[in-house]
Amino acid sequence: MSASPSIPATRVLAVASHVVSGYVGNKIAVFVLQSLGCDVAALNTVQFSTKVSAKEITDLYDGLRQSYLDDFDMMLSGYIPGAEAVVAVGNIAKELKVKNRDAPGRFFWVLDPVMGDNGKIYVAEDVVPAYKSLLPYADLILPNQFEAELLSEVKITDMDSLSRAIQALHDKYHIPHVVITSVRLSAPDHPPDHLCVVGSSMDSRGQARLFKIVFPSIDCYFCGTGDMFGALITSRMREAVATAADADLGARASWLSGDDVPALELPLARATEKVLASMHEVLSRTRDGMPAVVERTRAAMTDGDRADESKAHYVKTKAAELQLVRNLDCLRAPATEFRAKAI
Amino acid sequence: MSASPSIPATRVLAVASHVVSGYVGNKIAVFVLQSLGCDVAALNTVQFSTKVSAKEITDLYDGLRQSYLDDFDMMLSGYIPGAEAVVAVGNIAKELKVKNRDAPGRFFWVLDPVMGDNGKIYVAEDVVPAYKSLLPYADLILPNQFEAELLSEVKITDMDSLSRAIQALHDKYHIPHVVITSVRLSAPDHPPDHLCVVGSSMDSRGQARLFKIVFPSIDCYFCGTGDMFGALITSRMREAVATAADADLGARASWLSGDDVPALELPLARATEKVLASMHEVLSRTRDGMPAVVERTRAAMTDGDRADESKAHYVKTKAAELQLVRNLDCLRAPATEFRAKAI
Repeated sequence: MSASPSIPATRVLAVASHVVSGYVGNKIAVFVLQSLGCDVAALNTVQFSTKVSAKEITDLYDGLRQSYLDDFDMMLSGYIPGAEAVVAVGNIAKELKVKNRDAPGRFFWVLDPVMGDNGKIYVAEDVVPAYKSLLPYADLILPNQFEAELLSEVKITDMDSLSRAIQALHDKYHIPHVVITSVRLSAPDHPPDHLCVVGSSMDSRGQARLFKIVFPSIDCYFCGTGDMFGALITSRMREAVATAADADLGARASWLSGDDVPALELPLARATEKVLASMHEVLSRTRDGMPAVVERTRAAMTDGDRADESKAHYVKTKAAELQLVRNLDCLRAPATEFRAKAI
Repeated sequence: MSASPSIPATRVLAVASHVVSGYVGNKIAVFVLQSLGCDVAALNTVQFSTKVSAKEITDLYDGLRQSYLDDFDMMLSGYIPGAEAVVAVGNIAKELKVKNRDAPGRFFWVLDPVMGDNGKIYVAEDVVPAYKSLLPYADLILPNQFEAELLSEVKITDMDSLSRAIQALHDKYHIPHVVITSVRLSAPDHPPDHLCVVGSSMDSRGQARLFKIVFPSIDCYFCGTGDMFGALITSRMREAVATAADADLGARASWLSGDDVPALELPLARATEKVLASMHEVLSRTRDGMPAVVERTRAAMTDGDRADESKAHYVKTKAAELQLVRNLDCLRAPATEFRAKAI
């Protein structure tokens, strides 16, 4: 009765930023993917706090190809600084699509279009059209509510407009799977202090099959939750497809379930349920562990630094890091259960 | 009856090379340390196949210190290209020693003096004296048989000269703990096709307490076994000290056991036993998985490339990579048991 993940052997190309210490970007994505049994090649878009250029990204990938290390089953792309680098990463994904064109389902791209949050864009303006031009090549995208607005051009004010935004993403860009992460909208069946995630896999006519998962909000500042979400959904989607009732699903283009599969039975819904269970457990434990991190960090400071308010953000940043390595079981076999619901 | 590692929360600074794909250097060390529950800051000495300069290493560390991220419990240093960079890494270790001088046992440096193997030096010549100058600051060193000769200046031809080499390392440099990895010497009690590891923790008079562990050799070419050994012994040493009969051991300088502890009861012996159990399982499974890697890689090659003998090393290199992520249990809870023996 091992509760270990049943993810088939999977090679993932993870594209995101890199840091020396702490957990953000690829530091999170690589560990989470590995802990769930995926082999990962890490292509870092930021290194030692310096942007990696579009040319360097292309050169790194060429190096992998020339060494026959480009046999990826999946790609997960996260934060990419600048439009040129976004295009370079897109070219890698397109090349992998072309390489596998005779084997449907052989390659799957999870694209997290990191552009902004809460009404604010934090990338250069030309990154938005760069992402739009790549959407038709993505298999699954993971925008937050604000990014979904930017890409769909639908203003999201309630569950109804949110559903229209997802349909617009299916319609305009033919994106097979969409998950909108951390939706802050009220609904009659949402308890207070709860958030939700809304997802859809389109059917053969391009119609959205919508589900939502409601989960308790943890009122705390965390770093890298988006990176953890991306890595978890990448591995759990692979697992859900491999264990789906339709044994043939992994050999179908973009892993799109037949029209007989209702929204609440979608592999994407199964995958998202497990992702949120892991997220909830890791975030709860990180919150519980924060006072100890703050105490330890302050104890190591000089009296002068401790009294210096300008140094307080170091303590806050350190405490906000996800506590992953001590919580491997939360990633691999979460005990929490969330269930997808109809909208 | 969870067999998970019982390693206390540990922050490790891991210094080694970095690669995009595959498992060598810090790519191995970081994953192995994390999978055993250690938080890791990775300071890469080689990045994108380019040597990181001594100044860059120092700058990276200064960045960690300024952000209060230098609260390391342990440091593991592996491959460092060039004497200047070795000195820069040594300065980091010395700084961490000074910072923790009022708290014995609070910081522990595991130094793998990567210089060569099988009679050949593969670093610049001035790296050897650079390492020698740092040995007095190391708590545990992990030379292979050839590196032990270089550092001790004792020619190793049998178990007797090997023991003298270890005693010389204790005498000359006051290194508390030594493990000589993969010793190829015959002895009456070594079955054929077996190798051994020889270790020692010195007593209060500086005398070696020697043990050896004999294990079956796997006749195969693997990449990164030294990096895996280093990461495993770092975490398992921490565990062995935390669970030692002497509850006070972790608060003693260099975690040196009292003179009443015989060689076969040393925490270093306990740690090395577990390390070799994990190594043996991971290497066995990697060997068993090699044909599939070769087949998959060759299938992805063009007919021309497959016939081109100059491309064969790509296939060989890829097959030689340790298969870590699918074998997490071998790292965390190996079932194999090896026992330390007297010499």
